[in-house]
Amino acid sequence: MEAEITQHAFSRGGHTLVVPTKLFKENRERLCQRLRGNEKVPKGSIVILQGGEAVTRHCSDHEPLFRQESYFHWAFGVEEPDFYGAIDVDTGRTILFPPKLPDSYAVWMGKLQTEEEYRVRYGVEEVHWALQISQIIRNKEPSLLLTLRGLNSDSGKHSREAVFDGIGEFKVDNMLLHPEIAECRVFKSDLELEVLRYANRISSDAHKQVMRQIRPGMYEYQLESIFYHYCYFYGGLRHLSYTCICGSGENGAVLHYGHAGAPNAKQINDGDMCLLDMGGEYYCYASDITCSYPANGKFTAKQKAIYETVLKASRAVMAAVKAGVSWVDMHLLANRVHLEELKKLGLVQGDVDEMMKVHLGAVFMPHGLGHFMGCDTHDVGGYPEGTERIDKPGLKSLRTVRELKPRMVLTIEPGIYFIDVLLDQALQNPELAAFLNREVIDTYRGFGGRITSWLERMEWNC
Amino acid sequence: MEAEITQHAFSRGGHTLVVPTKLFKENRERLCQRLRGNEKVPKGSIVILQGGEAVTRHCSDHEPLFRQESYFHWAFGVEEPDFYGAIDVDTGRTILFPPKLPDSYAVWMGKLQTEEEYRVRYGVEEVHWALQISQIIRNKEPSLLLTLRGLNSDSGKHSREAVFDGIGEFKVDNMLLHPEIAECRVFKSDLELEVLRYANRISSDAHKQVMRQIRPGMYEYQLESIFYHYCYFYGGLRHLSYTCICGSGENGAVLHYGHAGAPNAKQINDGDMCLLDMGGEYYCYASDITCSYPANGKFTAKQKAIYETVLKASRAVMAAVKAGVSWVDMHLLANRVHLEELKKLGLVQGDVDEMMKVHLGAVFMPHGLGHFMGCDTHDVGGYPEGTERIDKPGLKSLRTVRELKPRMVLTIEPGIYFIDVLLDQALQNPELAAFLNREVIDTYRGFGGRITSWLERMEWNC
Repeated sequence: MEAEITQHAFSRGGHTLVVPTKLFKENRERLCQRLRGNEKVPKGSIVILQGGEAVTRHCSDHEPLFRQESYFHWAFGVEEPDFYGAIDVDTGRTILFPPKLPDSYAVWMGKLQTEEEYRVRYGVEEVHWALQISQIIRNKEPSLLLTLRGLNSDSGKHSREAVFDGIGEFKVDNMLLHPEIAECRVFKSDLELEVLRYANRISSDAHKQVMRQIRPGMYEYQLESIFYHYCYFYGGLRHLSYTCICGSGENGAVLHYGHAGAPNAKQINDGDMCLLDMGGEYYCYASDITCSYPANGKFTAKQKAIYETVLKASRAVMAAVKAGVSWVDMHLLANRVHLEELKKLGLVQGDVDEMMKVHLGAVFMPHGLGHFMGCDTHDVGGYPEGTERIDKPGLKSLRTVRELKPRMVLTIEPGIYFIDVLLDQALQNPELAAFLNREVIDTYRGFGGRITSWLERMEWNC
Repeated sequence: MEAEITQHAFSRGGHTLVVPTKLFKENRERLCQRLRGNEKVPKGSIVILQGGEAVTRHCSDHEPLFRQESYFHWAFGVEEPDFYGAIDVDTGRTILFPPKLPDSYAVWMGKLQTEEEYRVRYGVEEVHWALQISQIIRNKEPSLLLTLRGLNSDSGKHSREAVFDGIGEFKVDNMLLHPEIAECRVFKSDLELEVLRYANRISSDAHKQVMRQIRPGMYEYQLESIFYHYCYFYGGLRHLSYTCICGSGENGAVLHYGHAGAPNAKQINDGDMCLLDMGGEYYCYASDITCSYPANGKFTAKQKAIYETVLKASRAVMAAVKAGVSWVDMHLLANRVHLEELKKLGLVQGDVDEMMKVHLGAVFMPHGLGHFMGCDTHDVGGYPEGTERIDKPGLKSLRTVRELKPRMVLTIEPGIYFIDVLLDQALQNPELAAFLNREVIDTYRGFGGRITSWLERMEWNC
């Protein structure tokens, strides 16, 4: 008897977004549809994914708060560790395999869920304990198991394919699934867009809260604390998408500031520009927002000039972006606007077309214009088979070189930084130095090596 | 030439505690002293520790915020990943081996530190890049390298001993170091006590802030958010010692509530007792504080009765605890007070001595009385060689069975819970059931299965 699938949902209370399990059912359906269209995938194939595992900090019993592996989350929306999931490609029929927890779990960790409770909660057709996976899958007589192995083009790491006791008796392919599921993740469904919008709206409001409270004399990490508190307290965003980057003064010129080696520990000075790059995530969907502004609320002339340069680049990209354009062209457009404006300000000199030929823009914006966003902040699918990184300054940092299509979600985040090591290298490179007005540039570094960038990161959906 | 060691220090700003590098120098000196007293450790031995490594979340480029491995922190206080450290046992002379970072680090992650900058910052005698470790150690002509392998009695996991390219050419012992360094960690120096007190003071104030803001209708995770914000904003405590346990109503009866599978997501009802077990850590030194109180600020008679029972047990232990007493006896004392009070309330009946013989107390307090605290919340050294867990209800959960000595730091945290599965088991066990007054107990479960425990966890130092 086919039991009815209850449309159970995730939320963090009445003031937060309700996300139905349908989101994941749709994702699985999209995946099956793609796989059925792949002639290398035979009838009777089953997708097998392994969720993230519970770990401890080194040898201690400290358990960091678990956050699901992103592919597994995308397919199943499961919050807990140590699950497996299986999807029948022909029918979309889905089985989850939770770990069978010991009785002591009820005392220490919480009420033991039955298989039926899990089934209803996650809106799938079947649930069996993980220990039974081999036997259950065998009974389905699959022609092929599809496991997930493939390169993440942002990290250079490979996803770890599912393994379980007894998998050796099945025919397994670990290559077919990855490009197909990554491609599905590139295109967001309406329900996914709703979650992304929610995470971004709450994060945007949290940034505003920081803006209201920032004062010279505070420490950078206090802004991180305000931001997270707002996201979690008001939005139920328990995880942040990435470690907060709260760079004040010269720290604003460190692109990924804020980690353990540079832990947002500086006191903010009067006159400092602040680069605040922070985003929360809701149910494993990310936001990514950066604002830059002076801590004391008043731009200096130079801060304002650079801010408006980046703003102009951002607005130019926003106006040009649409389905069919190349992301590379958008990156180059931002650079062109930067260089045109920097020329007006006297930092660079000469013909902008010539500057573009030697990639002068990368001296000021050494990163790519933006990236896909989804279950990961730097979401997957940027370099599908047949595409390659462009080995040129700035362009080589692009996280995708694709032509834009509807339902892609990207950040647009130009920035201008005065990074000594890059400026010094450029000034020693005759090809670049000819365009650089060292005296003027030094007055910008001079004002404290301060970052004077402006970045906008927003969800884009055409 | 021996360069002067500057007494550099850790702090998170003027309102936070300043911790000198001397803390770690003293720790290393204590370790060397112990090792020199061990006849199995030959002259010319060198301790080699490997710090925690930078990792990413699965295959993505998401880097969770790094937190140092606790043994490595205890010895060196290094904040960043991917270090090695070496200590000459005869002299205490210390070498740190940071990773040599690529030039691009300066653009993305922050200013590149020189060897000398690291040396001054961490107050050690020498610094060389990690790639040179084999050659540098070879030049010291050690008789033996001491690496760290041993069992953590709380997790059942083994510490991972240091490895590096070329270690095969040295004579290595991985057994001698672990018991000695674990024993050192059990006894806190004055400087360590100061950091523990600071972490506990801030965490205590953060609990008070939660108490001021709690209202029925809020969600449990909002208390977690308030707590963390206070710790971080006012105290610079970026990490929490453990995932916050914010159990309201029946969730208070789940000892380690709050993890991803039970994520503090319930709305708090009027009349709920709340069990709030939260602690922040400062520079990798932990706090661990639990408070229980009704969300609406008014105890019911039953809530008050149980609260006062646990309070009485806590106070009895606090009065009895001193150097020379056995931790097992303290655990039993708490149980005895619980049973005496529960008898007065009519939940249990009969002779308390007889109840103690059958370990009836464990039905209501299934965990141990407390645990060591330090760089880990459940700090190491609870079961040194020659000691064993006592295989009896309640006692088997004790994280140490040691006799108390000066400079040990422990939590004292009795609690009473009404956990259906434990009560039902006990009621079916004739040996226990004879003492249980089912009708009265059911009126306690009856009031919502609510937790009505009270726990006190405090630093103790005699």
